[in-house]
Amino acid sequence: MPETTSKKAALIIGAGDATGGAIARRFAREGYIACVTRRSADKLAPLIEQIQAEGGVAHGFGSDARKEEEMVELVAKIERDIAPIEVAVFNIGANVRFPITETTARVYFKVWEMACFGGFLMGREVAKAMLPRGRGTIIFTGATASLRGREGFAAFAGAKHALRALAQSMARELWPKGIHVAHPVIDSAIDTEFIRTQFPERYALKEQEGILNPEHIADLYWQIHQQPRDAWTHETEIRPWMEAW
Amino acid sequence: MPETTSKKAALIIGAGDATGGAIARRFAREGYIACVTRRSADKLAPLIEQIQAEGGVAHGFGSDARKEEEMVELVAKIERDIAPIEVAVFNIGANVRFPITETTARVYFKVWEMACFGGFLMGREVAKAMLPRGRGTIIFTGATASLRGREGFAAFAGAKHALRALAQSMARELWPKGIHVAHPVIDSAIDTEFIRTQFPERYALKEQEGILNPEHIADLYWQIHQQPRDAWTHETEIRPWMEAW
Amino acid sequence: MPETTSKKAALIIGAGDATGGAIARRFAREGYIACVTRRSADKLAPLIEQIQAEGGVAHGFGSDARKEEEMVELVAKIERDIAPIEVAVFNIGANVRFPITETTARVYFKVWEMACFGGFLMGREVAKAMLPRGRGTIIFTGATASLRGREGFAAFAGAKHALRALAQSMARELWPKGIHVAHPVIDSAIDTEFIRTQFPERYALKEQEGILNPEHIADLYWQIHQQPRDAWTHETEIRPWMEAW
Amino acid sequence: MPETTSKKAALIIGAGDATGGAIARRFAREGYIACVTRRSADKLAPLIEQIQAEGGVAHGFGSDARKEEEMVELVAKIERDIAPIEVAVFNIGANVRFPITETTARVYFKVWEMACFGGFLMGREVAKAMLPRGRGTIIFTGATASLRGREGFAAFAGAKHALRALAQSMARELWPKGIHVAHPVIDSAIDTEFIRTQFPERYALKEQEGILNPEHIADLYWQIHQQPRDAWTHETEIRPWMEAW
Repeated sequence: MPETTSKKAALIIGAGDATGGAIARRFAREGYIACVTRRSADKLAPLIEQIQAEGGVAHGFGSDARKEEEMVELVAKIERDIAPIEVAVFNIGANVRFPITETTARVYFKVWEMACFGGFLMGREVAKAMLPRGRGTIIFTGATASLRGREGFAAFAGAKHALRALAQSMARELWPKGIHVAHPVIDSAIDTEFIRTQFPERYALKEQEGILNPEHIADLYWQIHQQPRDAWTHETEIRPWMEAW
Repeated sequence: MPETTSKKAALIIGAGDATGGAIARRFAREGYIACVTRRSADKLAPLIEQIQAEGGVAHGFGSDARKEEEMVELVAKIERDIAPIEVAVFNIGANVRFPITETTARVYFKVWEMACFGGFLMGREVAKAMLPRGRGTIIFTGATASLRGREGFAAFAGAKHALRALAQSMARELWPKGIHVAHPVIDSAIDTEFIRTQFPERYALKEQEGILNPEHIADLYWQIHQQPRDAWTHETEIRPWMEAW
Repeated sequence: MPETTSKKAALIIGAGDATGGAIARRFAREGYIACVTRRSADKLAPLIEQIQAEGGVAHGFGSDARKEEEMVELVAKIERDIAPIEVAVFNIGANVRFPITETTARVYFKVWEMACFGGFLMGREVAKAMLPRGRGTIIFTGATASLRGREGFAAFAGAKHALRALAQSMARELWPKGIHVAHPVIDSAIDTEFIRTQFPERYALKEQEGILNPEHIADLYWQIHQQPRDAWTHETEIRPWMEAW
Repeated sequence: MPETTSKKAALIIGAGDATGGAIARRFAREGYIACVTRRSADKLAPLIEQIQAEGGVAHGFGSDARKEEEMVELVAKIERDIAPIEVAVFNIGANVRFPITETTARVYFKVWEMACFGGFLMGREVAKAMLPRGRGTIIFTGATASLRGREGFAAFAGAKHALRALAQSMARELWPKGIHVAHPVIDSAIDTEFIRTQFPERYALKEQEGILNPEHIADLYWQIHQQPRDAWTHETEIRPWMEAW
């Protein structure tokens, strides 16, 4: 049990990338105890140090979001030892691209398991913890592939579509019970190491604010969490001004 | 020409209802000169007094949004005499309901003229003023009827669908020129006099935050306007927690 | 009054192009009396001759779909003098493209009046005739612009979005009364004189079935009309195999 | 190798229900060799007898659509021993409903595996066979849950959304290679044993054609398969006239 009821945890599943990290730091700045996960805990050290340097509190967890027992234990442990989870963010993607005939069953399954099944496990466990309190925010990160399929994206779009269906089904069930489930669609390249090294031409647009700044994604998530319950957003979208869509 | 370039105007077309009023007050609180319109200017006096009482600056205009010459002159006058328009909001609705066989041609036309054609005129004139500056925000207020038709709503849904097409077409054309065009969908009853008197049962949900507070709609519009250009929203939606959708 | 109740009329508003003509001929081949309209009746002579040469029956009407009194009289006249309208098709488009700042109020209004308001008038008048019989089919021709706005298409997409809202609202009201309202989306260039002369490169794809054959659009409309009432389609889409979407 | 190239196979995965059976019989009537599957082959005997009684040819396969090796072997066997697969239909659903907190990981996975993963395996294997021929039709059966999530339907809507993403991604990749991928949305109760026994009130609407007749679904699938390649449908929908949507 947390010592005081004023402590609040923000759980970010998939804090290994720039976006997850920015979200964790943002909630930490607002006074939440950031509980961040990725598969290997030691890689979280720089993020935790950064949060602490900014005056925040953070806990890192090596946790595989695809494993039911690990997710059950993760949520139980935070609720028991740290603080009630006020906000939970599922931020794991798995953006791969293969022609349909070269998409192996293993890849198709793994992408779904990572980008969707983990979201289901997080969503369900967090919902169980939030329901008795009748409050909380659950955010699933969406992408363009959440909205439409595209050549080469059968696996990734499949997982993201399924995650959107999860978010929508949970929203319709849990909003009337006081839990705010949202699905922001991040419709663009993000300023990450991956884009910088793999798509340098795209990355060059950063000079003109042509790729998404993770801090601004974090601002959106914070705004969603702050919404009063008469004015909740379920789905929204952000992309840079110069992005065709 | 405005005396100093630091002055900024916020134009709200359709400030006659609670939502338009709240948006005007919100932008005025942030230092914008609120330029508010409705068909008869004198009815704007209470809103202008309220803004002034809150320390803001406001100008009221009796202006018919459906009249091209009036809209051309309105935008020209504000740009010339008051301040550059930094944000423009089109907020006129026309929610009527008739069986298709009882929908007169006059009603069908009037609803479109009010809820869509006026938006086109505002959007075009404001775009002309903003384009040379390469900046500005244009917001068209959407509704559930923007997204789907429904029994009895041929006229209203038609106008709102057309307004959405306008917003989307303008966004695709003007975003790359620095102008942020957005279409928030307000998917619920709003705390207004109309709902209070016409739908008292619905209004009673206010006790539980079951109907939208216009101040919270205004917050959303302000957030949209504040977004940095790497993270712009085109469409978003808000509704109360207890609203089925 | 028609001499025998076995006579059935098919009304095609906007039979001036290849698509409207093919639809009229298709229904005529199936035994329907084709009632075809365009603004100037004499231009319908070739179509009527063609239908007659194929053994069908056709009547041409010079009728302006935007004029309420003309549409009221047209429907009344067919019902009174020719046969009950079993199927009605609204097939008038108005595909224009202008930057938003160069879209005149006149163009914006005219496009809506032609591509949407005429559809409302037809739909309402035909619904009045069909309702007492509890049967009939009303088809509104959709386009890509019915589903999303695009740079330069504020006027056209606005009209087509509004027409879609009309189709959807009418379907939800009239299906339970036995009237099948449908909105097929024709998402491509069609084999017409316009495409042949204005977009010759596009037209050249005809060799590979890369543009829509109006006869095949007519087949789709016939299939929709033939559907038993336990299996009605409201929205569907067709495009060529090589069309990106 | 088939003896003559004029033989054509229609593969229906999930022929255990009324819909799959009707589709198989329809293609058999049109001269296709119906290759029908369900998990236990012996339960297919009545369907095969019915097809034969109607003068058609059918082969039954006990095959688990979720097992990669079984699907690979099934497609290979039909192509090798029976005939080229001209049309393939994935028709397995898994309509379950649970509150999110009562949805076990096992159920969530099983529903996806059955209603989506099997579709991926079929689609990929059939695409491999069709691509060298540059022709063929692949149909994935959609449902309302393909389009939106709903309370209690996180698992089912997730699987159906993912299947839709698969269909759309495959269509965008394979249409330009001559393969017609389609996703008809069957938006209603169907006249089946399941509805008759579980939802008798709903079933009573059959008297008024208020539930879908599987034969009419089969007609739609046949029409889709017959479409010339300049006028292909990707997504369409059917539902009864009295169905609210």
